[in-house]
Parts: sequence; structure tokens; C-alpha cells
Amino acid sequence: MTDYPIYGRIDGPLVMIGYGSIGRGTLPLIERHFDFDRDQLLVVEPKPERVELLRSRGIPCKQLALTPENYRDELSALFPDGKGFCVNLSVDTSSLDLMKHCRALGVLYIDTVAEPWAGWYFETADNAARTNYALRQAVRDEKAANPGGTTAVSCCGANPGMVSWFVKAGLMKLAEDLGHGTQAPSTREGWAALMRDLGVKGVHIAERDTQVRAEPKPHMVFVNTWSVEGFIAEGYQPSEMGWGTFEPWMPENAHRHETGCKAAIWLEQPGADTRVRSWCPTRGPQFGFLVTHNEAISIADYYTVGAGDHPEFRPTCHYAYHPCDDAVLSLHEMFGSGEIQTEHHIMDVDEITDGIDELGVLLYGHAKNALWYGSRLSNEETRSLAPDQNATGLQVTSAVLAGMVWALENPRAGIVETDEMDHARCLEVQLPYLGPVEGHYTDWTPLTDRDSPFPEDLALDEPWALQNTLAR
Amino acid sequence: MTDYPIYGRIDGPLVMIGYGSIGRGTLPLIERHFDFDRDQLLVVEPKPERVELLRSRGIPCKQLALTPENYRDELSALFPDGKGFCVNLSVDTSSLDLMKHCRALGVLYIDTVAEPWAGWYFETADNAARTNYALRQAVRDEKAANPGGTTAVSCCGANPGMVSWFVKAGLMKLAEDLGHGTQAPSTREGWAALMRDLGVKGVHIAERDTQVRAEPKPHMVFVNTWSVEGFIAEGYQPSEMGWGTFEPWMPENAHRHETGCKAAIWLEQPGADTRVRSWCPTRGPQFGFLVTHNEAISIADYYTVGAGDHPEFRPTCHYAYHPCDDAVLSLHEMFGSGEIQTEHHIMDVDEITDGIDELGVLLYGHAKNALWYGSRLSNEETRSLAPDQNATGLQVTSAVLAGMVWALENPRAGIVETDEMDHARCLEVQLPYLGPVEGHYTDWTPLTDRDSPFPEDLALDEPWALQNTLAR
Ligand SMILES: NC(=O)c1ccc[n+]([C@@H]2O[C@H](COP(=O)([O-])OP(=O)(O)OC[C@H]3O[C@@H](n4cnc5c(N)ncnc54)[C@H](O)[C@@H]3O)[C@@H](O)[C@H]2O)c1
Ligand SMILES: NC(=O)c1ccc[n+]([C@@H]2O[C@H](COP(=O)([O-])OP(=O)(O)OC[C@H]3O[C@@H](n4cnc5c(N)ncnc54)[C@H](O)[C@@H]3O)[C@@H](O)[C@H]2O)c1
Repeated sequence: MTDYPIYGRIDGPLVMIGYGSIGRGTLPLIERHFDFDRDQLLVVEPKPERVELLRSRGIPCKQLALTPENYRDELSALFPDGKGFCVNLSVDTSSLDLMKHCRALGVLYIDTVAEPWAGWYFETADNAARTNYALRQAVRDEKAANPGGTTAVSCCGANPGMVSWFVKAGLMKLAEDLGHGTQAPSTREGWAALMRDLGVKGVHIAERDTQVRAEPKPHMVFVNTWSVEGFIAEGYQPSEMGWGTFEPWMPENAHRHETGCKAAIWLEQPGADTRVRSWCPTRGPQFGFLVTHNEAISIADYYTVGAGDHPEFRPTCHYAYHPCDDAVLSLHEMFGSGEIQTEHHIMDVDEITDGIDELGVLLYGHAKNALWYGSRLSNEETRSLAPDQNATGLQVTSAVLAGMVWALENPRAGIVETDEMDHARCLEVQLPYLGPVEGHYTDWTPLTDRDSPFPEDLALDEPWALQNTLAR
Repeated sequence: MTDYPIYGRIDGPLVMIGYGSIGRGTLPLIERHFDFDRDQLLVVEPKPERVELLRSRGIPCKQLALTPENYRDELSALFPDGKGFCVNLSVDTSSLDLMKHCRALGVLYIDTVAEPWAGWYFETADNAARTNYALRQAVRDEKAANPGGTTAVSCCGANPGMVSWFVKAGLMKLAEDLGHGTQAPSTREGWAALMRDLGVKGVHIAERDTQVRAEPKPHMVFVNTWSVEGFIAEGYQPSEMGWGTFEPWMPENAHRHETGCKAAIWLEQPGADTRVRSWCPTRGPQFGFLVTHNEAISIADYYTVGAGDHPEFRPTCHYAYHPCDDAVLSLHEMFGSGEIQTEHHIMDVDEITDGIDELGVLLYGHAKNALWYGSRLSNEETRSLAPDQNATGLQVTSAVLAGMVWALENPRAGIVETDEMDHARCLEVQLPYLGPVEGHYTDWTPLTDRDSPFPEDLALDEPWALQNTLAR
């Protein structure tokens, strides 16, 4: 990949919001793969040291924090002619508000998370309202109320994002391997029926980050491979998952929702302190944290067969995230001390001495037990693929790239989630940046090696039930 | 400390069983502080590579694994003349059997843990029988059945061991600071009454090990600062604690005992997967693991006022152990993978780049809230104090030294636990090896910073209740 394909032209202002670890990694990909007028580029970023960095790199920027009060005026001024592209890679801004205003202006929009305004994560008193379900449902309600129109791609990073394309690619592999043919469905209903027909009961977003650096984790510093702020915020949200029709048991502290798609449940406990058993190719069985994510809900919703409170089929879907070891220690420190670390550190590509981000989907419960399908990208390989990011970052930024390409090619698709996009086209754009993308079958189930000397209340005839995966 | 005091003469064979991390660290202290005939020294050790090491160091040794079948004959042959000292620092040997036979032979004996024969930890089917309560009670029953006689010091390492002396030293400090006088009690009953009168409700054995090395934890290698085998074995035992009379609530999976001193309860969950909130001076509030330990039971028993099933006063006592970060990750890996790592690594003094072992007792519930009293020994300082061990090791080996001195000075005291020994004399011997030994008061309680957005069933009028300390 030395001759980089140009995927299209961006007319009008190209505004990136946020120059954090993801923003920094996305910009070189945008520069590499799109045709646009350099003087139309602008990065919006509030933090002085990052603005400094932008200036030193000669990147046009504006020091500004978007707020509920200023965002309309600011965005209107930034996009005076009803065209351009708004690439939102910030924290503490409402994705929904920015998206709505961009659509009103006729400006293409993309983000990687349904983010709320600053304060929401820790100041929302009602736990049911403090869910990703609530954040996502608001975007879905907006889509329902205002269908079509200018394209706004919601939640198009690695996960949420790319993993939804992996679900489809994994299903196609499974269909072929199970003799179900090779014809991809062309509708949502078709995809949902295919998942059901293949016998898939659920999906773990199964991730293992093995990236390490030489320096041991310092005291009261939260170390991660991507936004610490983002991880802490979602980690303190209630644990959430798309709730499958096959589940025989629900935790006592689980709640359903009263309104909306009703595809998910939430637990009265923080996701980053909720452990589940899962599996990834390199390290095998492991604990992951059941941190809430948009895709857990969107995938369960997308693959639902039937409607109403009792659909015919719906998969369970949740995140099972083993972050890098330093982040595991950071969580242990945070929950143990009762204090959120104020010093944050994102390990950068050059200090990381080893490791990969192995991020995929584990499609389980079918005749071949379980298929993990995903990207196994090393930090080492990342270095040769793109500047200024580690493996975790590149999986996200290349998904943003793919989403932007798709939006340019489908500019009037309205509000979409990645489940609703053409996975083949998106992966085609993204693949050169993902390292080995592979399917791996495994015999492992959450009941494997489960010979504890302590009594466990297990669902022995339903190995993949949450009853077995959830550490209690 | 360049002029090392000689504390006494050991007549007859001086046999050390086990040349692991503790054995290796203990031998130089024995050589330094006792007068004995070099040709009477022998180390018994089964592992070929360790025997090799012993030979290369010119230390007389015998390659041998003690077993239930051979231990009588072997010990009888090693101690032919009814004198000498048996220093048991091995795993997989029954402390009780070895102790009994040594006493029958008239040989002084010391160990650092009530260890069972190989297999017991994982093959004992009944969880109540797989407790340290059961192991300790068997030693106590032997003491009751055969009082007096040749001294055998049971469980005299850092913890169990030294921490029992810290409880007494801490109580004396507290007595003085609360205006209760400076006269140390001279009987068990006196000590128990003092603890009650000072308003102490319970004791955490509060430890934070911050020792680190530069190499990140390798995959499926259990890394620790002392016996990995020993830690895994106790970590899979049921969580256990001395059970205080002040506790308003008991976990649903808790069990009392039918026989013996009845000072403790056990939980139907492995101790190394049981988190409690505790506090140490350097790092402040933290999660520790409630791993079962002999001292949790012995201290609760020793400080009981009154008798029978409903004593007037008994403190809660349990371990709250934050092992080194690599061990935290090793536990996460072990429980998450459902597999015990077969590769083990004990970090040695030269690879450790930083950190201390901060090991003390947190006496809580009294008018000054809580007092941590203990040793804050750095690996750095350890290097200058004694060869061939890290900070964790030196806290143990110097306790063995102190216990041996006490045994030589009290050769006909029968079977004793460290609670029953002269804490002042023992600490006098041990202090030069402990780095700063300090008392620190804290305002922290398990209810501090407890503003979770998720409902918690807390004992608000009893901050130190297990109901609040136990992470559920
Ligand atoms: N979907 C995915 O796979 C995925 C993966 C990683 C990150 N993300 C999301 O991407 C976003 C960025 O992640 P990151 O690692 O770059 O985070 P980061 O914390 O490194 O950067 C966020 C940036 O947003 C800026 N910002 C803060 N408040 C702002 C405001 N009011 N207006 C404009 N900018 C503001 C910050 O100054 C910072 O530079 C986060 O929301 C994160 O959750 C998604
Ligand atoms: N009380 C305390 O504070 C404390 C602290 C650390 C260790 N310990 C205990 O001390 C003991 C030694 O700890 P370590 O870190 O040196 O452990 P280690 O695993 O490094 O060494 C144990 C040694 O015992 C030997 N051994 C195994 N089976 C044997 C047998 N059948 N006969 C004779 N020797 C045998 C092993 O080969 C090994 O060399 C353990 O029981 C541990 O639990 C107590």
C-alpha cells in the first residue's frame, strides 16, 4: 500500500472535532485517501496543548469547546454553504445534537460513539437513563422522526462500528462452512433470518489488547491504549447487553426497558466491574469486562426476527473486553481506591514494546460451536501502515475512513448505524489497515474447565447462557 | 548492622527443609546469627535444579521429597541424637506430622505455615475440611492433647507470624495514645481484655506489595514475589476470616464450624477471587484479596474474651492482600482462563526495579478510627540488609530468625503460635531487618468515597462491618 487509493472528493469545509488519540490518527488517513481543498480543513479542539501541537504541525485549527449553548452558531459558521463533512471524534459533545444540526445544514456527518454533552455520564441520577440504550434510542427516534436526508453515520469506529461488518462477514463464512450457500442477504430481515437459521444464539464482541510498555503502571495513573476519559465514562455506566431470546435466566439486578426497541437489558452494576468469560484466538479463554457499548444493542436489534415484546428470535450481544494489562490494573486501582485517577495516559505507538489488539466477534451457539472473526493487528505492523497511532487507534480510524467513503458514496441515506451499511464495501476500504483478518473456530464454551470446588448455579444444558458467562 | 549479634548456639543437626525463595533467604540469616557446627548443617530439597544450586554454593544437601510414607524414617535418621533444629520452609509437607515427629525426637521445630501433604489443597472434596481452620485446629488439638514438651513454633513467618507481634505492638501504641497506660498484659486473657477495652473491633492484615520489574508479565506465567505454588494453593482455598462479635451481617454463602475454637467462618468462594476494601499508608485505600491465612483465625481466637458459642468479645480478623501488580494480573488470568498457569516466576531482588512490601495490621473501630502498624520495607533497602531475597522474603526470613531465637531461649514451651510468644523479644531480633516500622492513623473507613450510582446494601451505622468491606 504505497499507492494510496483516493476514494472521493470532499466539497466544502472538512471539519474534524477533537484532536485526541483518534483524531490524531484519523487525519493522516483523510489526507491520504480523499481529495479536498487544504484551506477548507479545520480541526476544532479545546485543549491548549493539543492546539499547540496542531499549530506546530501546520494544521489549521480553532481552539473551541463545543457546548449545548454554542454548537448551533459555531457549526453554522463553520459550514456556511450547506456542504462539507463534519468528522466528530471528540468527547463531551452530544453526537445527536451535532448530527441533527449538520443534517439541517446539509453537511455529511460521522462519529464513533453516541456521546452525550459533558456531565451526563456522572450527573444523570437515574441509571436507566444513564445507559447507552437511552443514548442510542434517542438517535433511533430522530431517524424515525426524520427519515432519509443527508447522511449521518452513527457510531462508526472499531466497536461500535467495524465489528458490525465483521458480524456479517462472519455470518457469510459460517453460512458457507455450514453449507448454507454464499449469497449475502440484501435486507435487514434477510440478515436476521440468516443468523437465526445458522443457529447463532449470540455474539460476544471479543477483544484482547496485549499491548504493553516497559514502564510499570505508575500509582494513580489510569493507563490505556485509547481515551481514558471515554473508557472511565462507559466503565461506570451500567453494564448492558442485547438480550437474546435463548437466555434461560436473568440476573436479579437486571432491568428491561419500558420504551424503544427493547432489545437490551441493563444491570445495576458498573460495566468495568462486571466480568464475563469469553474467548480470543491468541490468548484463548479469558475474562473480559462487560462494558456497555452501542453495538451490543444495535446488533441485537438489527438481528431480531419478529417484533414486539416477544420476538421470535434475537441474539444476545455484549462486549467482552480485556483491555491492555495496564488498564486492568487501572480499573482494579480505581474501584479499590474509590477514586477516579486524575492523571491519564494513553500509551503511544512508540513506547509500546509489544502486543496486538485482537478485536472481533465471537458468533456462538451454532453447529460448529463458535466462530471468532476479526482483526489481529499488532502495534509493530501499525507502525508501518499509518503514522501517529497504536493498533487500537488504527482499527478505529480506518473504520472512520471506511464510513466516510460510504457516506460520500451514499450522501442521502439519512441517519445510519454501521449494521445498516454495506459491510463488504466498508471492509474493502478498511482491510489494508487491519492486519490479519481471520476466522477461527473454537471448541471452548463458558462451561469448559469449569470444575470449581465451589458450587455454581450453572445452566448445564445451555453452555452459552449469560448464567454461565457472567462471573458471579 | 555490620557486627551481627549471635543469638545462641544450635546443638546437633541443623536441618532446613526446602530451598525455595524463603529457604534461600533464611540460610544466610541463620549463618549470621547462630553458632553451630557447619558439618551439622543440611538442606533437604527435592528439585534437581535447586540441589544443583546448593551444591554449587557448597551447602550440604540431600535430594529428597518428604512424603507421608518416608518422613518418620528420614527425620529419625537426620536427627539421630534427640537434639538439633528442624527449620521447615517447604511446601507439600505436613507441618503437623513433621512437628509431631520432631517433638517426639526432642528436636526443636519451626515452620511458617500449617502446610498439608501434597494433594490436600486440590483433592480435599469437602470445602469445610479444605480450610486453614481445619489445618490450624489439628495443630491446636495436638497442643491440647500433648501440652508442653519440646518447643515447636507454628506459623512463624511474616504473616502468619510477625503480624501477630505487630498486633501487640499496635495495641500498646494505641493504649498509650488513648491514655490506657503503657503496661503490657502478661496473659492471653489480659491481651484480649485490652483489645476489647481499647474499642478495637477488628484487624485487617493489610498488605500492599508495590514491587515491580521492567519486563511486562508474560502470558500464562504466574508472577509473584514469593511462592507461586503457595499463593495459588491458599488462593483456591475458601475465603476465611476470624469472625467478630460486632458484625451485624454475614454473607449468604458463609459457614461457621461445628467443632474446634469456632472463632472463624469460611465463604463458599476462593479467597484470591474475594475482594475487600482496606487501607495501607503508601497507597491509601485499595482492594485487597481476602485470602485465608492462619493468623486470621489465630488472632480472632487469641483475643476472644469469654468462651463458648457466644463469647463476650472477639475481633474480626482477615487478610486484605494487594500482592504485586503482576500477581494481580496473574490471578485475573488464572480465574479468567479457568487454567492454573504451569509456569511460575518469583521476581528476585535483582530484577525488581522499584517497590516495597508494606505489611502491617490495621486495628480498626476504636476512638481514633484505625491504626496501621507495620513494616514498610523496600527492595532497595533489602539489598543492603541481607543477600538473596526481596523485601517480601526478608519480612518472612527475619521472622523465622526471631522465632528460632525465641525457641532456643524457650526450648520447652511445647507447640506455640506467634500470638503466644514474647512479641517484644521477637521484634527486637527482627527489627533491624524490617525497614521503617511505623504506626499510621487514618480517617479512612470502608464507607469513605462510597458514592456509587448503584444501590448498595451497606451497614451505615457500622462502617467497619464486613458488609461494607466485602466487594459484592
Ligand atoms: N467506536 C470506537 O471503536 C471508538 C474507539 C475509541 C474511541 N472512540 C471514541 O472516540 C472519541 C475520541 O476518542 P480518543 O481516544 O481520541 O479520546 P481523547 O480523550 O484522546 O480525545 C478526545 C478529544 O476531544 C476533545 N474535546 C473534549 N471536549 C470537547 C468539546 N466540548 N468540544 C470539542 N472537543 C472536545 C478533547 O480535548 C480531546 O482532544 C471518544 O468519544 C471515544 O469514546 C470510539
Ligand atoms: N508465613 C509467611 O509469611 C510466609 C511467607 C512466604 C512463604 N511462606 C510459606 O513458606 C513456604 C516456602 O515458601 P517459598 O516462597 O520458599 O516457596 P517455594 O515454592 O519457593 O519453595 C518451596 C520449596 O519446597 C520444596 N519442596 C516441595 N515439596 C517438598 C517435599 N515433599 N519435601 C521437601 N521439600 C519440598 C520445593 O522444591 C521448593 O524448593 C511455603 O509453604 C509458603 O506458604 C510463608
